[in-house]
Amino acid sequence: MTQSPRVLVWNEFRHERAKPAVRDVYPEGIHVVIAEALRSHGLAVQTATLDEPEHGLTEEALANTDTLVWWGHMAHEEVDDAIVERVSLRVLSGMGLVALHSAHYSKLFRRLMGTPCTVNWRDDGERERLWVVTPEHPIAHGIGPYIQLEREEMYGEVFGIPEPEELVFLSWFAGGEVFRSGCCFRRGFGRIFYFRPGHETFPTYHQPDIQRVIANACRWAAPNINAVLPTQNKRCAALEDVGV
Amino acid sequence: MTQSPRVLVWNEFRHERAKPAVRDVYPEGIHVVIAEALRSHGLAVQTATLDEPEHGLTEEALANTDTLVWWGHMAHEEVDDAIVERVSLRVLSGMGLVALHSAHYSKLFRRLMGTPCTVNWRDDGERERLWVVTPEHPIAHGIGPYIQLEREEMYGEVFGIPEPEELVFLSWFAGGEVFRSGCCFRRGFGRIFYFRPGHETFPTYHQPDIQRVIANACRWAAPNINAVLPTQNKRCAALEDVGV
Amino acid sequence: MTQSPRVLVWNEFRHERAKPAVRDVYPEGIHVVIAEALRSHGLAVQTATLDEPEHGLTEEALANTDTLVWWGHMAHEEVDDAIVERVSLRVLSGMGLVALHSAHYSKLFRRLMGTPCTVNWRDDGERERLWVVTPEHPIAHGIGPYIQLEREEMYGEVFGIPEPEELVFLSWFAGGEVFRSGCCFRRGFGRIFYFRPGHETFPTYHQPDIQRVIANACRWAAPNINAVLPTQNKRCAALEDVGV
Amino acid sequence: MTQSPRVLVWNEFRHERAKPAVRDVYPEGIHVVIAEALRSHGLAVQTATLDEPEHGLTEEALANTDTLVWWGHMAHEEVDDAIVERVSLRVLSGMGLVALHSAHYSKLFRRLMGTPCTVNWRDDGERERLWVVTPEHPIAHGIGPYIQLEREEMYGEVFGIPEPEELVFLSWFAGGEVFRSGCCFRRGFGRIFYFRPGHETFPTYHQPDIQRVIANACRWAAPNINAVLPTQNKRCAALEDVGV
Repeated sequence: MTQSPRVLVWNEFRHERAKPAVRDVYPEGIHVVIAEALRSHGLAVQTATLDEPEHGLTEEALANTDTLVWWGHMAHEEVDDAIVERVSLRVLSGMGLVALHSAHYSKLFRRLMGTPCTVNWRDDGERERLWVVTPEHPIAHGIGPYIQLEREEMYGEVFGIPEPEELVFLSWFAGGEVFRSGCCFRRGFGRIFYFRPGHETFPTYHQPDIQRVIANACRWAAPNINAVLPTQNKRCAALEDVGV
Repeated sequence: MTQSPRVLVWNEFRHERAKPAVRDVYPEGIHVVIAEALRSHGLAVQTATLDEPEHGLTEEALANTDTLVWWGHMAHEEVDDAIVERVSLRVLSGMGLVALHSAHYSKLFRRLMGTPCTVNWRDDGERERLWVVTPEHPIAHGIGPYIQLEREEMYGEVFGIPEPEELVFLSWFAGGEVFRSGCCFRRGFGRIFYFRPGHETFPTYHQPDIQRVIANACRWAAPNINAVLPTQNKRCAALEDVGV
Repeated sequence: MTQSPRVLVWNEFRHERAKPAVRDVYPEGIHVVIAEALRSHGLAVQTATLDEPEHGLTEEALANTDTLVWWGHMAHEEVDDAIVERVSLRVLSGMGLVALHSAHYSKLFRRLMGTPCTVNWRDDGERERLWVVTPEHPIAHGIGPYIQLEREEMYGEVFGIPEPEELVFLSWFAGGEVFRSGCCFRRGFGRIFYFRPGHETFPTYHQPDIQRVIANACRWAAPNINAVLPTQNKRCAALEDVGV
Repeated sequence: MTQSPRVLVWNEFRHERAKPAVRDVYPEGIHVVIAEALRSHGLAVQTATLDEPEHGLTEEALANTDTLVWWGHMAHEEVDDAIVERVSLRVLSGMGLVALHSAHYSKLFRRLMGTPCTVNWRDDGERERLWVVTPEHPIAHGIGPYIQLEREEMYGEVFGIPEPEELVFLSWFAGGEVFRSGCCFRRGFGRIFYFRPGHETFPTYHQPDIQRVIANACRWAAPNINAVLPTQNKRCAALEDVGV
């Protein structure tokens, strides 16, 4: 197990440059705030953004990444299909993935889930409470019974995902909805954590508990093995060779 | 619940026309043998094959299908991507899918699983025993402790799928391998059953117990609701409209 | 599959006789209201209560039951351990169980779960919304996006259960909590559904949607097979008898 | 997370004293061989046996245990019910449990599973292969595609357990059976791993790969938190106190 996972924080980084209301909250970008938080939790962190060559997701960058954190929203469609396939294969080969907020609808997350990943939503800046359902889970380490966010975008069920293997957080919203907001999946040799909060106009990623959950998730999702994904079916030795 | 599900049996139908050894076992095609078996179990059955226009998977054909049975092997790559997407959306909207044998590596199944779906294999015609792990499961209805096939292709673990929600059959092979050979998945509003046996050179689909399992699976996978898949995220009413 | 399951509705039947506030809502007992509702849904229904001989749960009564519905609260400890074991074995042998509301803390449910089954609670008569998380599930058949109850007791997470195999409902409470309020479990050859609502001072079981869910659950949980539970480990034939 | 978990290896320790054939394989007892192996893997290990006062499972001993390893067979019924309840509560409060071989039928394991935990079996000393189904799982760390044991007792399906949350090993037996032989469960705040091999007349626990799996499992099952089990339902603050 990697004791100090290497994290790559990927951000679309468009809202922050286009909208003053977002820039006020994340002047240098969501990725910078998350990266600094993860560093303060002892992780080795790099960042990458959509408008870099190959979206900053070169083979080399991925080869040096244990867990990838993904934030995207308005430009999902601009992510190149070949890069999506490259990153998917990395996840299936063992790289961890922490998909944040609107990343539920990214090509990458939908490709790995195989389902529409749709949600109901409302952006009225209402109160959210994220209840811990499995307090013993490493991703909930150091978190109390719940995390409260005074203003967030609402996501409501039905969330169009496969049944999560482990459910860590359930969200309550003041407007009357609930949401499976912390979901663990294993796919291929990789681990995936979806974490709901983080609308770009609210200071969610500045909150210490949110930062802690993301740090915990980066450690949880980091690979246990140096796996190579089987890219095709494999013929086995014949019976006589096996000697049974 | 549909009392008498409408089944569409899809077959690649290439091996049977190209290889005498296969034609001997399935002179009119695998789909014809399966279709007749399902009719004898009281199901309403149509068939479709790869070389028909739109692979026989027109919007109209799918609109009249409760459960789709899929057999493919040598020509996975010839299945049109647009048709794969069309069928995927149908499954996610509620149509059942029964994926047989080498369909584990079809574009359709891999698209829905999000994983490589690779297997280890050996085609030496060895004995397989499919043990029932959940005797109370509707798909195992009428089956004893196991089904024995004297000659089959071997598939061995690791099977590159997400963890099945329910495991119905586990296979034992004389050569020393095991395999999760009857796996249930729920994806979107649809149900998917993967069933391992059925190499084209062996008379597997002529065996009554195998036919019974496929019939059971067609009933199990048939939709409970007339669902329409959410094809995009949906904005909810604002708080004041909800009246909370 | 049993087309018209035989249901036995079991009720502690103490609150209704002791407290006027409960008697006003359920003059003849909770079991009578539920039984009539299930009959109107086409089920064959009997009832039984704690103070009958053997709590009304004789071997004969159980032998004629496909699904048992259980409501208990103040007198969990008065249920005889031998009867609990008898009913448990029936469930493990294939009889369905629908555990309602405070039955989460019954000896029977805790025995079958193996966990404490504790909840957080508050009895202030607040609004509850039960969101459907899996609209295609047979237990949600005929239910819209959610069921709203104007006044209910609150149950909050952490709910001390094993991870449910399927999650059908998630509850939202006006006071700020969430709860996994519709949970499916398979145990032995039996199916178990836990359904949260139904505090004795509120008219919850008079509400048509709640009645429909219970009826759906009775059909879902009814056994698929006439199973006999293995009550001990079984020695298998030696190799030579198997002929491998 | 505990970096160096404290392990308590519990053994019935009857076969070894009663039967020469077992004493030849484990002269000082199964627990001594396992304890030494775990120490060589860097774990801090104590042992306890059935015939000690309180079976060696005092409150103090348990308070100093992160993971308990359990081997029992011929004397399941002699384990005191009060001790079983004490140990169960510890597991539900976060202590790990590794249940070995015939411990599937111990009071402790059955209490925690809530199901009969029965198996089919045959003691002919046949070949077993334990296939790794999830190579990325920490319990499979350092293990190849499978572990082969030349002579073992056979356990066959149906294994009467709840569906495991994660399946790590699947066994193949020369006589024609399969078995879910490495199963992970989360119960309360504790983690449980069931591991099949280890009949007392065979040198299974002397095999390095088997020792490695048990060591891995002890680390995996060790608690992440200092949890205190809720032993009763908890009343929550009223709405006005919550301030919602």
